[in-house]
Amino acid sequence: MNKELFKELEDLDKKISMINDITQVLEYDLEVNAPKKASQERSKQLAWASLEAHKIASSDEMKSLLERLGASEGNEEGFGESDYEKALIRERFKELQKALKIPESHIEKKQEILTTSYEKWVEAREKNDFALFAPYLENVIECLREEANYLKKPNQSLYDVLLNEYEPGITSEQLDSIFEQLETSLVPLVAKYKDKDVKTDFLYQDFDIKKQENFSKQILREMGFDFDRGTLAIAVHPFTISLGGDDFRITTRYTDPNLCDPLCSTIHEGGHALYEMNSAINEIKGTSLGEGASMGLHESQSRFWENVILKNPSFWDNRYEDLQSKFPSQLNNVSKTDFVKAINKVNPSYIRVNADEATYNLHIILRYKLEKQLIEGTLKVEDLPEAWNSLFEKYFSIKVDCESNGCLQDVHWASGLIGYFPTYALGNLYSAQILDKIQQDFGNREIGDIIKSDGLGEISKWLAVNVHSKGRIYSPTVVLKQITNKDLDGNYFTQYLEKKLEVIFD
Amino acid sequence: MNKELFKELEDLDKKISMINDITQVLEYDLEVNAPKKASQERSKQLAWASLEAHKIASSDEMKSLLERLGASEGNEEGFGESDYEKALIRERFKELQKALKIPESHIEKKQEILTTSYEKWVEAREKNDFALFAPYLENVIECLREEANYLKKPNQSLYDVLLNEYEPGITSEQLDSIFEQLETSLVPLVAKYKDKDVKTDFLYQDFDIKKQENFSKQILREMGFDFDRGTLAIAVHPFTISLGGDDFRITTRYTDPNLCDPLCSTIHEGGHALYEMNSAINEIKGTSLGEGASMGLHESQSRFWENVILKNPSFWDNRYEDLQSKFPSQLNNVSKTDFVKAINKVNPSYIRVNADEATYNLHIILRYKLEKQLIEGTLKVEDLPEAWNSLFEKYFSIKVDCESNGCLQDVHWASGLIGYFPTYALGNLYSAQILDKIQQDFGNREIGDIIKSDGLGEISKWLAVNVHSKGRIYSPTVVLKQITNKDLDGNYFTQYLEKKLEVIFD
Repeated sequence: MNKELFKELEDLDKKISMINDITQVLEYDLEVNAPKKASQERSKQLAWASLEAHKIASSDEMKSLLERLGASEGNEEGFGESDYEKALIRERFKELQKALKIPESHIEKKQEILTTSYEKWVEAREKNDFALFAPYLENVIECLREEANYLKKPNQSLYDVLLNEYEPGITSEQLDSIFEQLETSLVPLVAKYKDKDVKTDFLYQDFDIKKQENFSKQILREMGFDFDRGTLAIAVHPFTISLGGDDFRITTRYTDPNLCDPLCSTIHEGGHALYEMNSAINEIKGTSLGEGASMGLHESQSRFWENVILKNPSFWDNRYEDLQSKFPSQLNNVSKTDFVKAINKVNPSYIRVNADEATYNLHIILRYKLEKQLIEGTLKVEDLPEAWNSLFEKYFSIKVDCESNGCLQDVHWASGLIGYFPTYALGNLYSAQILDKIQQDFGNREIGDIIKSDGLGEISKWLAVNVHSKGRIYSPTVVLKQITNKDLDGNYFTQYLEKKLEVIFD
Repeated sequence: MNKELFKELEDLDKKISMINDITQVLEYDLEVNAPKKASQERSKQLAWASLEAHKIASSDEMKSLLERLGASEGNEEGFGESDYEKALIRERFKELQKALKIPESHIEKKQEILTTSYEKWVEAREKNDFALFAPYLENVIECLREEANYLKKPNQSLYDVLLNEYEPGITSEQLDSIFEQLETSLVPLVAKYKDKDVKTDFLYQDFDIKKQENFSKQILREMGFDFDRGTLAIAVHPFTISLGGDDFRITTRYTDPNLCDPLCSTIHEGGHALYEMNSAINEIKGTSLGEGASMGLHESQSRFWENVILKNPSFWDNRYEDLQSKFPSQLNNVSKTDFVKAINKVNPSYIRVNADEATYNLHIILRYKLEKQLIEGTLKVEDLPEAWNSLFEKYFSIKVDCESNGCLQDVHWASGLIGYFPTYALGNLYSAQILDKIQQDFGNREIGDIIKSDGLGEISKWLAVNVHSKGRIYSPTVVLKQITNKDLDGNYFTQYLEKKLEVIFD
């Protein structure tokens, strides 16, 4: 391979990444600092910067470079020799193809459809009236089907095209089988634990924000979050964003009434940030490969820290006293055991974002089934509420009381995010499978024991080496296989969860 | 004039302004939010965005548009008909000429020279050793002389070229005469008041930051600062920055030991922000004319609010009790009269940034005289410390004790800012002349009376209509004449100050 040509590609890619970082600065500032009326002009700034990046990604220069580097359909990696070279050529080729295959007119139409559907969704959710939103959701689905048709490979289903935008390499065939197994295990598990008598009232008290922040920051530091390369701030909806290869911002909120929510949010986002922070290294730093491999693998990292680590009883062994000493009047009468039970309570509820570890995946499977049928055309939009409510009752034995607590609760579909929900469940599954390997590598010991004797820093280093440092070089399925030597297997998750709930509640 | 052509120019100008706003977002975030290690990548992002704006400003498209709109040397306003059209053509032509006249190689060389000189200045100031910095200052001066030579009009002095970058339309001939008169009045005035026995110790106590912030915010609101279009945040060095026509950020700091410093800083920056906020209106909003007319006029607005309003005894008539109620243990034993004396104390000191209203201009005149001689070549860099110390003693009857407290104190020269210092003094002079007109327009009443009976909001509205809304359409000298019907006259300032000090201290 001509190394000089590759260097040219690398430089273009770095320029695109740098412009994308600028759009992230604009986004971050808008969410965290900007005054109310700044948003209109900010949209124009964002549109301009995104267009500049897009222009380079789809330029004749890019096209010619990729051609000369041998990239083509069926040989996306071109003449790339190292895994890094192959991946960079592949990713740029994919981006270019997308730009070439989807007409500009479609992009504009989509933007309009999504703007309106979002507005209508907000209104419909407020008025608790799905019928108001239905015609706009139909437009979204039609538009995404059209987009999928532009990108579709031979024999690929339309839904798989959308899914692969977020989770490259995963098929709905795989998901169908994994989710069926998961459903079979989770429904009785939830039924078994949902009626346990677990007190949580002590979590709903007044807790000083500064002290909460200090406690979270201490854990972030132990996890290896480098405050010289990142910050923690407050936002309306918690998120993580990379503004460069040395600039990672976590945001959280303290408005939820439960002590556990801000802490979980912060550590969850911290998991995302660590992934980004540790993937910005070596040759991939500053390129489009210097970030997480997929939404699902990203979610595996956030959920690993939030669920596997933070909610493990051993995590609290020497930390609960510290928390009590920060909040003596609120927690001195609460035992560590009761605290751990409270933060792990199995509690079926309408709303996905409030779901516990055991019910969460069922919320996702429900959405996956319905959105796939919507794209396939086997479910009509008008029949969505009924289909939703019936599945919900099947999983949780609870009747949905209103559409806002049912199929109107999430913003995703209104925003054109179809094929995205499965990545949340995949995150849980990946994290359990990775956990199994961590336990092997730390001398076949339980994660609780590893937390106590080795500390969070050692776990973090393991993840940095085995997951994060690969960036986007490989697809998530390849990364999982490299790490665990196995294909994706949902049983790791059910086994992990069954055992955990048994230890805590039985 | 061909209106369609002008519309094209306007669109290009708005695009440049929008990209400049993006660089401001990048700057603001860097100063206020970014983690330590983000700065290197941020510099690259900034360089790219600045270059994109520069490319448009100096593009063939711009050149051809301006030609077709009739702009040329000697007729900078081209075929413009309204004042707005004339100004936009003039400003874009000026920018283009600068880009055409200054070679790229000079820009690159200058950047290098300034980076090194800044580093050396930091070191020299720390080590209190001017000789270390001297050769680098020589480079800066040589480089600026070269730049001035590129831009110089026939019969224009090199210093005036530099001065006009910050204060268009002002000449050093004018400054020489105005500053001489000012010096003659100020030196005895300072001598008269400097030994008054004024207590200030009560300002140096511990004051809760949140309460300070609330107090400042209340004043900002009264001044008409719109928190839907702006914010107040914390930074190491206070500054104001516009990130768009609806997005104005003030920053301040609470690390100074004196209660008055953060308050004065915040209100000073608030004055800058109001100017920007109220100049982003009508057709000039979003163009390069939608901002302050010059550094001096900008400074007139910040100093007006900080000195003329905030330090006026009447300002505190109903506000001092409010401040006392916020800080009872610190201020209950201090009378309003003593508080007003303390914040107006005349106190000659080495450091410009700590100077009071009476001594401040003398600090500037000293710097003006020396920097003009440096550019003219009548003062050698090696002789600067002696020249500085001797003028300082002449003005304040104090011997400079070390170079860090003398000619090494300011960052300006090390950063290539020569011709900038006079704008600080001009700000004071403009503000006093504008004050005189305000007093006339409010029925020939004293400003103290206006503050009390009409309120800050009315004064703010007057400034918005008479100063701010003109943006950069006119040069500062034209604006001053439009407002006051008179040319710049330094006597307004001395009269204002003599009277104020008499009322407070005699």
